[in-house]
Order: sequence, then C-alpha cells, then structure tokens
Amino acid sequence: MLPQTGYKLWLDYRKVKNSELLQEYRNQIQSVYIQPDTKTLEIAQKELSVGLAGLLGDKPTFLERQNIKNAIIVAKIKDLNKEYQALFESSKIEENGFQISHVKENIIVTSNDDIGVLYGVFHLLKHLQMNLPLKKLPIFDAPKIDLRILNHWDNLDRSVERGYAGNSIWKWHKLPGYIDQRYIDYARANASVGINGTVLTNVNANALILTPMYIKKVAALANVFRPYGIRVYLTARFSAPIEIGNLKTADPLNPEVRNWWKAKIDRIYKEIPDFGGFLVKANSEGQPGPQNYGRSHADGANMLADALAPHKGIVMWRAFVYSEHDATDRAKQAYNEFVPLDGKFKENVLLQVKNGAIDFQPREPFHPMFGAMPKTPLMMEFQITQEYLGFSTHLVYLPKLYEEVLQADTYQHGKGSLVAKVIDGTLDHKKISGMAGVANIGSDVNWTGHPFGQANWYGFGRLSWNPYLSAKTIANEWLRMTYSTNDEFVTPMIKMLLISRAAVVNYMTPLGLHHLMDTGHHYGPGPWVSNLSRPEWNPVYYHKADSLGIGFDRTPTGSNATAQYAKPVADTFNNLETCPEEYLLWFHHLPWDYKLKNGNILWNGLALKYQEGVGQVREMQSLWEQIKPYLSAEQYQEVAMLLSIQLKEAKWWRDACMSYFQTFSKKPFPKGMETPKHSLKYYKSLKFPYAPGIRPSWH
Amino acid sequence: MLPQTGYKLWLDYRKVKNSELLQEYRNQIQSVYIQPDTKTLEIAQKELSVGLAGLLGDKPTFLERQNIKNAIIVAKIKDLNKEYQALFESSKIEENGFQISHVKENIIVTSNDDIGVLYGVFHLLKHLQMNLPLKKLPIFDAPKIDLRILNHWDNLDRSVERGYAGNSIWKWHKLPGYIDQRYIDYARANASVGINGTVLTNVNANALILTPMYIKKVAALANVFRPYGIRVYLTARFSAPIEIGNLKTADPLNPEVRNWWKAKIDRIYKEIPDFGGFLVKANSEGQPGPQNYGRSHADGANMLADALAPHKGIVMWRAFVYSEHDATDRAKQAYNEFVPLDGKFKENVLLQVKNGAIDFQPREPFHPMFGAMPKTPLMMEFQITQEYLGFSTHLVYLPKLYEEVLQADTYQHGKGSLVAKVIDGTLDHKKISGMAGVANIGSDVNWTGHPFGQANWYGFGRLSWNPYLSAKTIANEWLRMTYSTNDEFVTPMIKMLLISRAAVVNYMTPLGLHHLMDTGHHYGPGPWVSNLSRPEWNPVYYHKADSLGIGFDRTPTGSNATAQYAKPVADTFNNLETCPEEYLLWFHHLPWDYKLKNGNILWNGLALKYQEGVGQVREMQSLWEQIKPYLSAEQYQEVAMLLSIQLKEAKWWRDACMSYFQTFSKKPFPKGMETPKHSLKYYKSLKFPYAPGIRPSWH
Repeated sequence: MLPQTGYKLWLDYRKVKNSELLQEYRNQIQSVYIQPDTKTLEIAQKELSVGLAGLLGDKPTFLERQNIKNAIIVAKIKDLNKEYQALFESSKIEENGFQISHVKENIIVTSNDDIGVLYGVFHLLKHLQMNLPLKKLPIFDAPKIDLRILNHWDNLDRSVERGYAGNSIWKWHKLPGYIDQRYIDYARANASVGINGTVLTNVNANALILTPMYIKKVAALANVFRPYGIRVYLTARFSAPIEIGNLKTADPLNPEVRNWWKAKIDRIYKEIPDFGGFLVKANSEGQPGPQNYGRSHADGANMLADALAPHKGIVMWRAFVYSEHDATDRAKQAYNEFVPLDGKFKENVLLQVKNGAIDFQPREPFHPMFGAMPKTPLMMEFQITQEYLGFSTHLVYLPKLYEEVLQADTYQHGKGSLVAKVIDGTLDHKKISGMAGVANIGSDVNWTGHPFGQANWYGFGRLSWNPYLSAKTIANEWLRMTYSTNDEFVTPMIKMLLISRAAVVNYMTPLGLHHLMDTGHHYGPGPWVSNLSRPEWNPVYYHKADSLGIGFDRTPTGSNATAQYAKPVADTFNNLETCPEEYLLWFHHLPWDYKLKNGNILWNGLALKYQEGVGQVREMQSLWEQIKPYLSAEQYQEVAMLLSIQLKEAKWWRDACMSYFQTFSKKPFPKGMETPKHSLKYYKSLKFPYAPGIRPSWH
Repeated sequence: MLPQTGYKLWLDYRKVKNSELLQEYRNQIQSVYIQPDTKTLEIAQKELSVGLAGLLGDKPTFLERQNIKNAIIVAKIKDLNKEYQALFESSKIEENGFQISHVKENIIVTSNDDIGVLYGVFHLLKHLQMNLPLKKLPIFDAPKIDLRILNHWDNLDRSVERGYAGNSIWKWHKLPGYIDQRYIDYARANASVGINGTVLTNVNANALILTPMYIKKVAALANVFRPYGIRVYLTARFSAPIEIGNLKTADPLNPEVRNWWKAKIDRIYKEIPDFGGFLVKANSEGQPGPQNYGRSHADGANMLADALAPHKGIVMWRAFVYSEHDATDRAKQAYNEFVPLDGKFKENVLLQVKNGAIDFQPREPFHPMFGAMPKTPLMMEFQITQEYLGFSTHLVYLPKLYEEVLQADTYQHGKGSLVAKVIDGTLDHKKISGMAGVANIGSDVNWTGHPFGQANWYGFGRLSWNPYLSAKTIANEWLRMTYSTNDEFVTPMIKMLLISRAAVVNYMTPLGLHHLMDTGHHYGPGPWVSNLSRPEWNPVYYHKADSLGIGFDRTPTGSNATAQYAKPVADTFNNLETCPEEYLLWFHHLPWDYKLKNGNILWNGLALKYQEGVGQVREMQSLWEQIKPYLSAEQYQEVAMLLSIQLKEAKWWRDACMSYFQTFSKKPFPKGMETPKHSLKYYKSLKFPYAPGIRPSWH
C-alpha cells in the first residue's frame, strides 16, 4: 500500500540524506535532557523521541542531568541549571515564545512557559527537517497574534459545510469514551505551527452542542488538546435559549435569557475550565440573532461577553452579514452595520471579518472594515477550505492570497497601515488580536483531500503566528518538511505553488470579476444564474454584463462602496488610471472595447486572461513532470491526476464564461484563445446534485 | 504518529520474527519467476514484491526463466515449462482455483486462469504471514460459491446507510478523473480473500447512478477492479424509467419500459463490458417495484434479467419484503411472497435472502426460505456492518454468527441439508450460487471503525469462498496475519473473538428475544417503543411482554411461522422440550415463571443471561489485558477504550431491558444480577439525534 499516505502531514521526520550533515547533527545531538514533569513537556519529549529517531536514524538517549555535552537541553528558564540560567533573560521572551541557543557545546531550547518550550521543540525539529546547519542558531521567536484559531464548519452528523476532504474528524457518537488517534495527531500538527484554538462546530450552529451530553464530549476533546496549548471554542446558536432552554425568547436584554446563558456558560466551565468562548454567526443568511428582537449586534455580543468574562472567555462575533432588503451593494453592508458600533463592544469581544467584503473569492480587495474600527479588535477570517477555489481538486496555494491581503495598505494612519498591523493589533494598540481559518480538514487519510491542501493548513498556521512571513518562505518550509530537501525538487515546486493562485484567479474570475460560481455548491462556472430568490445570490448581480460592457461600478457614480476605504485607497480604486487591473471589474463597469494597459480591448484582454489561467495550469503540469524523480510512483500519480482534472476544469471555466459573455459582447474570440469545445447550452446544462460540501437540506 | 494505523488491514506483511523459519523461507525463496504479461499477473508480481520484501526483509529477485532452483514459479499451467506442465492436471483445477506444490526444489503456484494465479499468490503469502512451514504444501483450493459479493449501502452524497466507519469510500465527485489509492487497496484486500464482486450503491437506490455522467464514474471503478477479478454491480431503482427516462410508468410488462431498460443496459455494457448486473430492493420499505403495477416480483426481476442476459449479466432480487397490511407475522411474509414463485424466475435471477426472517438480529433462526425453493438460486445476505450489534464500537466477531447459520440444517432433503449446501448450490444442483455481505467499510483510516471490524470483512470473504470453514479457523488466520503469530497472543484472542458473539446476544437479546433496539438508528435498547406508524417497526411487536409472560408465539397456537420449516425443524421448534433455549422466546410466549432447563424461572433466567453478557464483556477486557505485551501502546489503548464503552453499553442494555420488563413481571431482580444504576424513566429519556448510519431524511 502507499509508502506515503499523507497522514503524517509535514511531520514525517524522514532520515537526513546528506551524510555530512547527518554526522554534524549526530555529533551535536548525542543525548537529550528533558524532564517530562508536565503533560506538555511529556509531549515535547515524545515528539523529540519520534522526531530525532526518524531524522537521525536512532532513538535519542535521554539523560537525567543537565551537566552534559553535545546534547539538547530542553527546559523552562527557571528549571535550567544556574550557570545556564544566567545566560537567558526571561523578560526578553514573550508569552509562549522561545529561544534556541548554543551554550557550552549544547543546544538549549527554553522558554518561560511549557507551551513555549513545546513550540521551541517543534521549531528545532523543523530546523533539522529542513536540513539547515546548526550554526544558524540562535533563534528567538514568539507569536505576534494572540488567537490563532481554526474554524470547523462541522455539523453534528459529521457532514462538513464546504468540506471537501471527507466528513468531520469529530466522531461525536463515540465521544467521550473513544479518543481517536486523529485528535492527538491533529493537536500535534496544530501545535507544530502554533495554532492555539479550535472552534469545533459550524457557524450555522446547532444548539444541541450546548446540551450536557455534548458538553461532556467537548470536554473530552478539550482534555486531549489542552497540553498542546489548544483551547476549545464552540459556536453559539443565538436562539438556543428557546430551542434547548424552553424560554419563549432569545432577546439579549431579557433577564431570563441572560441568566440562561450565564448558567449555561458556568456549566461549561465546570467541565472545561479553560473553555475559550463562542464564535457567533448572527442575523446572517437566516441565522437568528439580536436583530430578531430589535437589538444590535453589540447587544447580542455583549450579553454573551458578560457571561463569559468571569471565566476569561471571549466572543468572536462574525461581521459576515448582508441583507436581501438592502438593494444597494452587498459589499457595503458589513461596514455599514458594524463600523457605527465601534467602541460599543465589551473588551472580550472580537469582530471576525472575512478578508474581503463579498465571500472568499479567488481575489478580493481587502475588506474596508480593516482599519476602520480603531476601538474594536478585528480578527481576520480566512478560508482554508476551497469553497470557491476548485474544492479539493484544484491545487491552489493560499498563503499567496493571505499574503496579498495582509500586505495590503489600508492607509488608515497613512502609508504603511497594513492589514497585518490591524490584525496583530499594533496599528491601534489593541489588547487582543486574532486570526481564524476555516479548516480544510476532514476524514480523508491525508486530511485535506488534495495533498497540497496541507500546505494551506500549514501556511495559515504560520501566518497566524507571524502575519509578516512571505508566502515563499512558507512554501519553502512546507515543501522541505513534507517531501524533499533537494533543491532540484524545491525550486520548481516553489514556482508551482506561487503561480497556482494567479492561475485560479485567471481561469475563474480575472480582472476583478467575482462570484461567477454556480449556485449552492459553488462548483464550476454559473455566470448565467439569475433566478435565485435573493438578488445577491445570483452571479449576474456581480458581473452586470450587458450589451455595453461588464463590471460592478462601485465608484461614486455607482454604489460608492469605495467611499468605505481611506481616501488614498478610494482615490486609487476610483481612478481608472490608478485602479490595479486585477480589481478593474470589481470597481468599474466598462465597455467591451475599453482599452487595457497592454493595448488590448477589454473583451480580448478578458479572453486572454482566461487563456493565461489555462496556460498556467499547463505550466504547473510541466513543473510536476520535472520533479517526478523525487517522488514515489503513487505520490506522483495522485497529483498528476488532480492536475489533469484541474486543467479540464480551467478550460471549462474559460469556455463557459467566455461563451456566456459573448452573448453580450457579440464579439469573436480573439486569436490566442482556444475555441470552446461545447456550446453554451451544454455548459448551462451541467448539473452536480451531489457536489460535496453543501448542506444536506439544500440537495 | 501511529506505528500501525490499521490501514493495511491483514496485508501488513510484517517481517518473520522466528529466525529459523525466516532462514527456511529465505533458502526456498531465493528468486521468483513470474511473467507480468497481463494486468492481473502484473498485480500478482507487485504483491509478491511487496509481500516478500516485508516478510523476508529483502526485495525478491525476479528471474526471467523457469529453469531455476529454490524459487517460486508463478504461471498458468499452459505457460509452465513442459517438464512442470506434465505434473499438473488442468482438469483437476476448477475455475479460479489454484494449486501450490513443491516441484524439483521449487514452489509452483499455478492455475488455469490469471485470477486463479492471483488467488494462489495471495494464498502463498498468507501461508508465510501465518508462519506455516513450507512442508505443509501442496495446497489445492477453489471457490465453492460463484458470486462472492460486497453490498455497499452507499449513497451518492457519500453518506452510508447503516455505515459506522465514516463516509463512503467512493469519491463520486472526483471520479472518473481521480483514482483514489483506496480503490486499489480495497481491490487488493478483496482479492486476497476471493471476493469477486461489489455492488457500489445503496439498495434504497437513486436512479441518478444510471445516468451517463455516473456510468462513466462507475466505469472508472470497474477498470480499477477488473484485473483483481472483481466485477462491479449497481442497484437499480425500479422507477428509474420515470425518474430519469421521462416515461409515465415503470410497469415491467410495458414495452416502452422494457425498451428503456434494454437501451440503458446496452449503454452500460458499452462502457463496462464485464458489468455484473443489478441488485434490486423492490416493494420493500417504500421502494417502488412491480407490485405498484399489479405485477409480481418475478415479472419485475425477469424484465431486468431479459435485458441483462445477452451480456451475461445477472439480477440479484432481494427477498426482504414485509407489509404493514399483513397483520399476522412479519417473519412469515418473505416466504409467503416468494416461495410460490419458485420456478418462475429466469435463469440469471438469484433471490437474495437475509440470514434470518426478521432483520440481521444478534441471533435469528435460519430463514425458512433456505431449502424451500429448489428451482431458484438463493443467495445468502449477511450483514457485516453492525446495524443491530453495537455499531463500530462493540467488538463482535461475526463469522461465529455466519457459521451458525451456514451450519444450520434445513432438513429439506433429510438430515444434512445444511444451509451451506443451499447457498453453494449443491443441495438442489443450482447452476449459479452466491453470497452477499453488507459492507462495514468506510472512510475511516482503518476502514471499519473498530479495528476488529476488519475480521468480519475478512471472515465474510473467507466464508463466501468456502462456507464450510469454521469461525475458529478464520479467527486464527486473521489474528496471525494482522497482529502476531505468537501463540500467547493468538490463543487468548481466539477465545475473545469466539465469546464476543455470545456476549452481544446475551446482553442485547437473550433467549430468542429480538428487535428490541431503539427505533430508527437501532442504537441502544428501546423495548418500550410502541408509537410508530407501522406495527412491525415497534419493538413491542416482537417481545409481546405482558403481565403473563413474554415472547412471540410462532407455533401453531400462534402465527404458525414454524410451518414454513421442514417438518423435523418445525417439530423441534414447536416443542418446548426440544426447542433450543437460544430460540425460546422467538417461537414461544411463556409465563414469567416458566421453568428453564437449568431450573431457574424464566424471569430469573432472563436476568442472569443479561448479566452473563455483561460478564462476558468483562472477560473480553481481561483477555485484552493479557495480550497487552504484543501490541503497541496505541493498538492496546484503542481497543481498551472501545471495550470500556462496550461494557458500559452492555450494562445499559441489561438495565434498560430488565427495568422495562419488570413493569410486566412485577418480580424482583434475582441474586446475581447487578442492580440498575438508573431509573427506567432515565433510560427511556435517552435520545441520540445524530447517531450515525441513519438516512439524513430521517433526522
């Protein structure tokens, strides 16, 4: 069977191949000191044992004393020998940070706390996995963001909304008695990249998770995750007091409702003393919320925050709201709803904001809320699962997307007001900061469906630790840890990862187009869909193609959504001279013969962008051929099959979209664009009733 | 991560530990001859390569000539050298059978056909895996049953009806382009035990599987399975001509309907030349069927059979029917419906009959249809997935149940008319024979949820090859292949497996009780359920407990279901003196103070049987403790957790059932039965809205 099933993720710990380097490592790592006197340090010891055995080929020797040489010494600063202690400054190491240094022929991994030590151990192992020389030490590192959290859109029946890697890894039925090995390996993988929280349940929430039977199950998971530094969070269904509490209302200002939540939360903390808190989707896409009772989002969030505060729990309140009753522009609505509430939220509330104002598109301009709420901590919500990006069949390296958003400049305090600084809290000196990623994790043996989906989980984790890392740095780490440290493998693979995001933008939604995906499942193109009850659920709402042209005018002549950005940003987007062409049709409705910067008319340029996306997939295929020698036959074959599907679907996107837009432009396809294989009627006829990831009730 | 995740099933090929034996093997297996000139032989070669590398520690040397010594020579008889050929008699080896013999210092594995060679290779590898001496050769073997088929109750949305090991392994969305490695490993595992067919879809069928888009996906799976000797079958929804064919009727005698099916089937064979045929659930539990049009089951089956016959396809028509309009006894209805049709079915129709007349209970008397239809091939339908047997949490070794059924004597042609002989066709000289098993396979890393669920898949396969094998023989094989060949491991583990089936009968439904499971999900006890629309869906229908006593009178004073058996069998069951006590309450309604053979009154005896079941789980736990040294920490811990849950649930069964029955018997619990921990009200209050395996529409 498969020599490498992908189950081990980036923690495979293959033996070091370079014999000189192996000798260097072995000389330095003749023994290891670590006292497993807490569960976390026990885990660190076990990881060192497994990791070093794999990397160096022999189980490490653990010694009981620090007075040794050519060893690794792992301990909190306060537990180091006096002579070592003198060399470290506690105050210089932040919470959960670590230092790895050469001291007297030893390598010391230390921190002020257990979790910092564990992070340090994972870091040292990564150093060896990447085959870096030991002289590259010392290393200081610490997380720049407080809350580094996965969001699982997992239902209690184990279906996963927008999940493309099998079903939920939470085996609710067998909990609390049965602890799946996967829970442990999930915790290890997360700890290795610094993820320190997990929301177990879908934002489209089910109140049953708050009943005693389920709380016991949640507690069992919390017990597994705790020593890895991972807290458990749940989604709170706002109407739970009615559904499981027998109350007549869920009005957040009603005293009975407030008492119900307080009692419920007290009960949860009895079972889970370090429970993290709640993530809430309220008054959004049919979910109940405070507005059902004429109250504001702040009223709703603060009610929960009050009940959580005595336990140091937090509320992550999602800003993803839009209404079918607001006819102007969906892109404006979250801002309009929330920005006026700045300063109204309790201290333990964070607003969780998607990276863009629509919904996890292949490319969106950064969300205008970033930087616009100086008194409220804003969490980033990235999507790791590829709802709009080809599910788990397309290879799309998402850190490239994340990097683009984090590096965007809001100009809220002048140049350099990066989104990353909003998120890490430094721009407005926030007391708490966070980043959430909607997980792409499921029950597939390799966790993420596409083996390269693992890179997106890894990359999200790394960026939640340090939002200033480059996508390239992360790609380099992941590739070396997961597959091979050979440069002839790594160099073309970095190239493949980095073009993959440009490819998907080009073959799905180039030049600022967005939300052209077929409705419900979001699989494949559906730019013609116009028959859904809510206008903003229809792709035609977003592209507005007509005989004159295409695009959504969000400038002052249109919806004026650009006014939500700081002036320099708004000016840039409003002006056709300065608006980046990748956002062109996001902000402007332009005639088919509008001249692009390269001299092509818009129609031709659009066609060639689609074609370029298809070409980029072909390039990815050829890079994959090139690195074949570094893979097992099965590893090679798996991704080769997936790339073939991706190419087929890239063409499908190009041909379906261009054939449809042609009904408006009435222009021939330009030279350089391959001719569609099928008729528009054919593309419109395709149906996928069991596309994965959709809510069962939607079938 | 896990040293042994269970993914490799019984094909782990661990290195032989006994050094003398290893030397013996190495001396004999210095090289291997096999010409991979067909896909099947290529697979055989690959399996030898992986298997011998694992078992002997070195990759085998493959040579191109047969004129060698101390080698394994693998070839069809016609491809052997003349001098070897002379030593084998083609006519003595049946279709897909094989012979393994010592010839001139070599071991020859041969057959008349490729699949026989592949089976022989797996058999030889098993011989080595079990660490058997090579002098134990030669071996002749051949399958005794023609169709050895897994039934997957898998839906197109990847949910699995009655599936407890994750979701479906068929990734429909990614087919046909993506061939999951699991498909290959599934085929290997099946071929290794001789399974030669798979029904991919749920008997509660969806007509979409017959549309061109899905047929292409099915064809891709058929291409993977073909060289492993495995044919693909589908379930046919009887109303498909209406649902996907735009016809107004599905009447099997309507010419348009007949033409539609003929065209549909011709189309399928164009894509899948060796398509196996259809499995049909008709006029059963709401499924459409010929009776909707006033036609008989024979009319329906024959219509499909006619269309399949030119392609050598078959129809497997399920006999699992019962009607809410028949007030007498559900147990009688399949017999009443089908036995009068004996002789009316086309040659390529088999009736697929569940092992007992109700529904996959922990214990049922054999189905009275076995032996009662001398002109019709009857296939056995066993359930491997544990719908009524504790899902994938309880360790229940099912070959013990299968053996009991197969060894039962129908007396249809006098003593010795075993069910096994009905199934293998020898009793009435049937032209075709078959055995089906409802699969327990899902997307869990270890395939079956409970690691010991693998033994049930393995055991089903072995019994479908040879229905006369003992459960003990099979347990011995599976344990040695999967875990350890050490007798100190194997002996207690065989004991554990063999008592596990008795345990579940005792703690769930002792003394012939049946169908006490809570309704819908069938998880846990629900003997009190009486409010369902169809009487025969209520547990009270089956136990008929009242102030006088308990049990279902199926003798001539009651429903007279016993009359469906041959006279000697009926007489045995009717007579309280001769009726085996394990079937007592299946056939008799008896007073609470009825005297059992051991002198206890029925009430006390029932209590002590429940208690015995609980005790047997404790015994299983203690056996598991005993073999701890032979397992990794993770392997030990996983089953230890599951046994803890099993013990808890065994007590739950005892306490809930006995507390409920006590409301009728009004008698105290006897000495020897532990006192229930909770009230009956508590047990009745337990709800499991997301128990796995239920149809989503039933939630």
